[in-house]
Amino acid sequence: MPSKAEISFARSLHQKKFRQEHKLFITEGKKAVEELLRSVYRVKKIYALADYAEKLSGPFAARVKGKISVANEKELQSISTLTTAQECVALAEIPEAKFNKESIAGSVTLMLDNISDPGNMGTIVRTAHWFGIEHVICSERCVDTYNPKVVQAAMGSLFFVNVIQTGLEKILSSLKKSIPVYGTVLNGKNIYEDKLQSPAVILLGNESTGISEELKPFITHPITIPPGVKTGKHKPDSLNVATAAAIVCSELTSKNIL
Amino acid sequence: MPSKAEISFARSLHQKKFRQEHKLFITEGKKAVEELLRSVYRVKKIYALADYAEKLSGPFAARVKGKISVANEKELQSISTLTTAQECVALAEIPEAKFNKESIAGSVTLMLDNISDPGNMGTIVRTAHWFGIEHVICSERCVDTYNPKVVQAAMGSLFFVNVIQTGLEKILSSLKKSIPVYGTVLNGKNIYEDKLQSPAVILLGNESTGISEELKPFITHPITIPPGVKTGKHKPDSLNVATAAAIVCSELTSKNIL
Repeated sequence: MPSKAEISFARSLHQKKFRQEHKLFITEGKKAVEELLRSVYRVKKIYALADYAEKLSGPFAARVKGKISVANEKELQSISTLTTAQECVALAEIPEAKFNKESIAGSVTLMLDNISDPGNMGTIVRTAHWFGIEHVICSERCVDTYNPKVVQAAMGSLFFVNVIQTGLEKILSSLKKSIPVYGTVLNGKNIYEDKLQSPAVILLGNESTGISEELKPFITHPITIPPGVKTGKHKPDSLNVATAAAIVCSELTSKNIL
Repeated sequence: MPSKAEISFARSLHQKKFRQEHKLFITEGKKAVEELLRSVYRVKKIYALADYAEKLSGPFAARVKGKISVANEKELQSISTLTTAQECVALAEIPEAKFNKESIAGSVTLMLDNISDPGNMGTIVRTAHWFGIEHVICSERCVDTYNPKVVQAAMGSLFFVNVIQTGLEKILSSLKKSIPVYGTVLNGKNIYEDKLQSPAVILLGNESTGISEELKPFITHPITIPPGVKTGKHKPDSLNVATAAAIVCSELTSKNIL
């Protein structure tokens, strides 16, 4: 049973400053917690309903040993970031950012500039995992990677993709245009006609304002997903950024590049 | 200035039963409200901050005549469905569902079975609009199309796509397999290798459980977006449904079918 102090500590991790102070984050629900247990992430504590706690001890016995605290629904609700708590909440360590320039020299890397919606960020990480992209590099102005809504939307994929948050300008500048930097913009080359290649960086910008002015000079290949609206019909002015990310990844896969 | 009764009426539209009773829905923020004014939707009322009310009267003078009520921030917040209200909230009529079998016989139609997340539903409508898809047919078990979170995520595209909510079984059965029904499933044909065609129906299922058992028999072409995870790595078990919808639409566009 979690003590009041434990509940209060877990709750503090809803906030970025305490996540950063303790280097811990919170993840909840069967799906995400089981993916966490399959990953190399260090698990600190799992609060779970009695039934579910018992189930977890089966396949994940070694991983959960000494870390499970049985909680009732009310206790889980007070730890949860969700309107309706699920059967378990886990506390896990935020890993040290691992990154070197060579990591991106050999494959396709997503770079996210100033993504503000946690649902978008989590969905992009989930999509990256699906398409086998190993590194997602987020600018410091992006929403915190370990924000509970990002963790939720990533559906466990956050634990299998190397997601790091750092200055993009420094990395892009160190690449010295040695590999293509595809930037999704409004008036770029039609993505369906462009000859895409790997290794490459795919740069995606903010939901409202797109790629920031400071990063635009690093784009070597501006690309656009053309709207398919019939002539004469009113045209939408943008696509959701997580949708755009998925389309670029899919197009690379379709062309056997990814 | 909105009266207390008006505020209370507008607030009632946060709930599905009152939206259905009054055949009205709520939409907020510059972007969505301006798209609403560009559409054929009937606008009933616009509550806006003084500055913005004046701006609206310029390009949309005819559309907004006699319908604007200047409100202060506190009043807008009490009408708003958002944590932080934006500069305007509009009340508009839910249009009569227009649908006949011929509408789907000549083009690509999205059918959504039991989509429960409003953000996903809105994003799918936005994507449909982007790719020039005219009809999105949602099962009755989907989240309400005029749920404020759906309206928000659709970013105005809801007003330019014919989105109707009805029984899918009846429509699919009336098609008698005359056009392909592509269903996104886990073990279908690789979407990148399949020869897709139009007209067609693209059927997408629930976020957790996929396409329901009752609708599966109507699928003529089960398709799959294959995961691109490198051998030996842990594989995610699904993609976000709005992401999947976008990838199918993009693939159709890439192959010049849409």
